[in-house]
Amino acid sequence: MQALWLENRQLCIRNDLPVPAAGEALVRVRLAGICGTDLELARGYYAYAGIPGHEFVGEVVELADGTLVGCRVVGEINVSCGECQSCRRNLQAHCERRSVLGIRDRHGAFAEYLGLPVRNLHRVPDAVPDEAAVFTEPLAAALEIQQQIPINAKHRVLLIGAGRLGQLIAQTLVLAGCDLHVSARHARHRALLLSRGIRLIAENEIAARDYDIVIEATGSPAAFETARRAVRPRGALVLKSTYRDSVNVNLSALVVDEITLIGSRCGPFDSALRLLERRAVDPTPLIDAEFSLVHAIDAFESARRPGVLKVLIRP
Amino acid sequence: MQALWLENRQLCIRNDLPVPAAGEALVRVRLAGICGTDLELARGYYAYAGIPGHEFVGEVVELADGTLVGCRVVGEINVSCGECQSCRRNLQAHCERRSVLGIRDRHGAFAEYLGLPVRNLHRVPDAVPDEAAVFTEPLAAALEIQQQIPINAKHRVLLIGAGRLGQLIAQTLVLAGCDLHVSARHARHRALLLSRGIRLIAENEIAARDYDIVIEATGSPAAFETARRAVRPRGALVLKSTYRDSVNVNLSALVVDEITLIGSRCGPFDSALRLLERRAVDPTPLIDAEFSLVHAIDAFESARRPGVLKVLIRP
Repeated sequence: MQALWLENRQLCIRNDLPVPAAGEALVRVRLAGICGTDLELARGYYAYAGIPGHEFVGEVVELADGTLVGCRVVGEINVSCGECQSCRRNLQAHCERRSVLGIRDRHGAFAEYLGLPVRNLHRVPDAVPDEAAVFTEPLAAALEIQQQIPINAKHRVLLIGAGRLGQLIAQTLVLAGCDLHVSARHARHRALLLSRGIRLIAENEIAARDYDIVIEATGSPAAFETARRAVRPRGALVLKSTYRDSVNVNLSALVVDEITLIGSRCGPFDSALRLLERRAVDPTPLIDAEFSLVHAIDAFESARRPGVLKVLIRP
Repeated sequence: MQALWLENRQLCIRNDLPVPAAGEALVRVRLAGICGTDLELARGYYAYAGIPGHEFVGEVVELADGTLVGCRVVGEINVSCGECQSCRRNLQAHCERRSVLGIRDRHGAFAEYLGLPVRNLHRVPDAVPDEAAVFTEPLAAALEIQQQIPINAKHRVLLIGAGRLGQLIAQTLVLAGCDLHVSARHARHRALLLSRGIRLIAENEIAARDYDIVIEATGSPAAFETARRAVRPRGALVLKSTYRDSVNVNLSALVVDEITLIGSRCGPFDSALRLLERRAVDPTPLIDAEFSLVHAIDAFESARRPGVLKVLIRP
């Protein structure tokens, strides 16, 4: 089959790859999205050789028990072992021996077909078009924040970063009814937020200790420092991005102000699909471009440009 | 009056200091304790000139309305302004304009007398001797952990550090019924824990991702790293000590493992006094030495020795 292949920081299109072996659901990829992690993988920040891609919507073409064949599905990206300490604690996304679609020990979605265990799949409601369903994985990640910390109308919330993930976080925070300010660097990102009635704040206008909850979604150490200073005593700082290197942190300030720092990663697919079905969240304005699989390398080039949000690949 | 005076990293005994002015409760200090913060103040890690000391038990000798005169009291150390954003949020301990007894803009307890607003005072139950009551402030700080994160019999908990504060934390964690392991460096600290039936763990036996909750009570960057590695995914890391400098932190690991990091400082005096009254916690074995106020500089020397726990000063 045809797929995008990553090895030693080099991307290439290959046509000689085998269709994933039987034993798991075989999914024909209908549409896949490029996320920041894919760009970092391609830059060599993680050791990975294989087919990248983990945001997708597809159609089940083969499954032992036949149940989902012909259905449109999205898939959770962590494939757990079922036996380790994390699995026994029901923390499958944190399985110590997990493979991760297109990220670790498992070929991903920039391909004609992918394989995933049936337990990872979620059927996509008919009302959700492919162009929205392909955002299920990052939308679930955005929703994870509210799984970890309750957010409501009483909270004054600051979101730093309004890129691919930040835009989705902003849309989900609006649903919590909180008093939301978003700091966004790119004019188009700001325009997208304004079009949904979301309030912006300039970076130099962020007051110290002014927010109950601050969400850092840029992965930049400077933004982390801005975020830390913006949280009020006893407030919460949610980290929604990974950082390339270690960050120098004033831990004493966290102790004195009794700040809670919360690392946040993958989230609930079922909630994400429900929001997409009800159109409570609309990710489609984030789509900047669509490329066919054979032009996937151009798609990566496009996704790398500053300010570009979602670039899709259609096999 | 007589008091210990700190200025430019120099300690001296002075006899020319005025008794605190009227307007607040005037408290005759019966007994005061030296804590790690006092030693750091004396080393010049914080800018402070004045009388140090914030752990005390005393007797009210003057108060406008006369209510508490003659009573034994302990006192909360943060004196709030009542008007700032933190005060309006009912976070008086985090008041932006607070003075702190013996630490910031307010003379402390290594003196014959100290002044505090009556709202900061707690009456000491008759059953609690001075030698136990003097531990109310650090015991309250230990109890703050369980105000921030519920701990129960289901939790596997690691405490790193069993010094002045760590010993009290260990005793309060035992009351939560959790599965507790304590990592302690000094033989005497270990012996004290063992005498209360508390289980020890050697530093090199701490397994990665093995604990639901880890409490770091040493303030050492190396111990922070040990603590971070010991927390399981979705677990909590409580920081109970300040760090001299910024610490290089692998924030991405916190994100990937969805760790919650909780800064923890001052705690509830009423709970601490109740535990002392019921003898559920016994801090008195931590007392290593007692000095009269005139020998307070020797007391500091004694408190600085490695492994020494509580040194008391009696005016």
